[in-house]
Amino acid sequence: MNKKPIVATMIGDPAGIGPEVVAKAWASGEIHQYCEPVLVGSADVMQDVVDENQLSLTINMIQSVDEKTNDPAVIDILDSGKFDMGSYTKGQDNVSCGQISANWLEEMDQLALSGAVDATVMAPISSVSMKMANVLDKIIEIEPGHSYLFLISGPLRVMHLTDHIPLRDVCELISKDLVAGAIEKLNDSLIEWGISDPRIVVAGLNPHASGAEEDNEIRPGVEQAKALGINVEGPMPPDSVFRQCIEDKYDVVLAMFHDQGHIAIKTWGFSGNCALIMGPPYLHMSVAHGTAYDLVGTGKADHTMMLEAIKLTGNLAAGNGFFSE
Amino acid sequence: MNKKPIVATMIGDPAGIGPEVVAKAWASGEIHQYCEPVLVGSADVMQDVVDENQLSLTINMIQSVDEKTNDPAVIDILDSGKFDMGSYTKGQDNVSCGQISANWLEEMDQLALSGAVDATVMAPISSVSMKMANVLDKIIEIEPGHSYLFLISGPLRVMHLTDHIPLRDVCELISKDLVAGAIEKLNDSLIEWGISDPRIVVAGLNPHASGAEEDNEIRPGVEQAKALGINVEGPMPPDSVFRQCIEDKYDVVLAMFHDQGHIAIKTWGFSGNCALIMGPPYLHMSVAHGTAYDLVGTGKADHTMMLEAIKLTGNLAAGNGFFSE
Repeated sequence: MNKKPIVATMIGDPAGIGPEVVAKAWASGEIHQYCEPVLVGSADVMQDVVDENQLSLTINMIQSVDEKTNDPAVIDILDSGKFDMGSYTKGQDNVSCGQISANWLEEMDQLALSGAVDATVMAPISSVSMKMANVLDKIIEIEPGHSYLFLISGPLRVMHLTDHIPLRDVCELISKDLVAGAIEKLNDSLIEWGISDPRIVVAGLNPHASGAEEDNEIRPGVEQAKALGINVEGPMPPDSVFRQCIEDKYDVVLAMFHDQGHIAIKTWGFSGNCALIMGPPYLHMSVAHGTAYDLVGTGKADHTMMLEAIKLTGNLAAGNGFFSE
Repeated sequence: MNKKPIVATMIGDPAGIGPEVVAKAWASGEIHQYCEPVLVGSADVMQDVVDENQLSLTINMIQSVDEKTNDPAVIDILDSGKFDMGSYTKGQDNVSCGQISANWLEEMDQLALSGAVDATVMAPISSVSMKMANVLDKIIEIEPGHSYLFLISGPLRVMHLTDHIPLRDVCELISKDLVAGAIEKLNDSLIEWGISDPRIVVAGLNPHASGAEEDNEIRPGVEQAKALGINVEGPMPPDSVFRQCIEDKYDVVLAMFHDQGHIAIKTWGFSGNCALIMGPPYLHMSVAHGTAYDLVGTGKADHTMMLEAIKLTGNLAAGNGFFSE
């Protein structure tokens, strides 16, 4: 891809810090180095946070992606005009905000599916507001074998085989086909993102990667993937693989369940975390923080993760790989 | 305790880096500030590493703890004279080293049980050599409800409810009595070590601490402990408790299984890790690294963990608590 990829960012729940961190990320001037950005959301909401934070940015409401200016001083925003500024209070869950979040996610999905944009980023939404509006189904659900959560925290990168599933069920669910399929999906994605010979490591399930699930399912699954020529090792002791990834022995860890990867990511404490939802046929990124209602309107929201998320999405969509440290 | 506690350190497997890191820790001059140290092992082995590393230490072979000099320039060592310097090769597993490791562990255990020493430290042993000598039973086995592994990595401290047990069995094993008993044991120990009002947090088992085990066993177990007046919270989401402990919201995390705590400790990557074996009626510490055969004889073994282990053992045995950062 010679041209920079077009990355759409949904501004997040209007009542949360999403719009503020998106505006600050834009004002950094850095995101245009990695992509041609466009926002999906409300021009009024963005004007509000630009004024509140005294940012030198003008808002340009557009009807189609082609109309974007690519000028870092101009926020190009696709605004379907459906959001009523009088319908919500900042820092509070609200049906109207939940409903508009779903609308914007759907609009962004359509843009990506139609090829109008190359990749998408989601600023923080409120699942409470979306539940109030009965539109929680518009958030992409993680379903083992079909979609995966991929966390990135600098050199520590983890794809999860399973997500919000009780540990008992994880033990039952793990199968060699599930493991092999996830490795294959991961390998394909990494190559697409610009990592030419991905080094994948698979975590075990049990202490020291020693147990029935390792012998009967995980190891045979890894062997199945190896037979396809994939550079994959494992199952490895779950307590040491994440450190090995940080130390660049591997590009990514395939974790067996939610807390393996989340404990590693959150305990390590790198500040620029972001999360890919692997499932849609396009690149879909989200940030690792929430709506932080207590910070809304204070101007204190930190845009580091948002900026990192947009930059990395551009870099991966361009096939330029992860950022090296 | 006005007097400094007497801490016995078993020098570890003669073929590994144990003797070297023990000698270097002694040469730092720091351990006498925290305890009255004495070694258990072979005077010949210690003389060898002192010479090899050109340390300004003299070896003083003693027959009873009373004979120790308390002079930092003098290594006071209890040597039962049973080890033959001709019986092993450095850097290699060996029946003779396995057997002597067991002897020294047993001698140290007797010293602690008789009250001759207040606490004990174990330098790295080789479980392979001990297996060759058929004396693996001399290493304290972790048995849920009776003994626990307690990992310390600066401000991150974790006691494990269960150790080397398959995840499936962990799900079955967790009971409210097991949880409550572990909290009580933990609270008592922390108070004994000098933490006056211990802040304990219990990790959940499942993602977001949400599942049947939390509802039926862990939460009732926590409530049972609370009813005894213990300051304990949980079950909390396993992926965030360890970071909260690092940030000093809690003194210690009670983890449900091996990898919860080990992933956190190893991924965080603090260098001064050590491990308490809670079970014997006295304080028993070990270091978090192994015999590192590849480093034996090179003089390159790092004694940081060994030094930290002895100092911390002295501090805890004196009732002075953990080291603050």
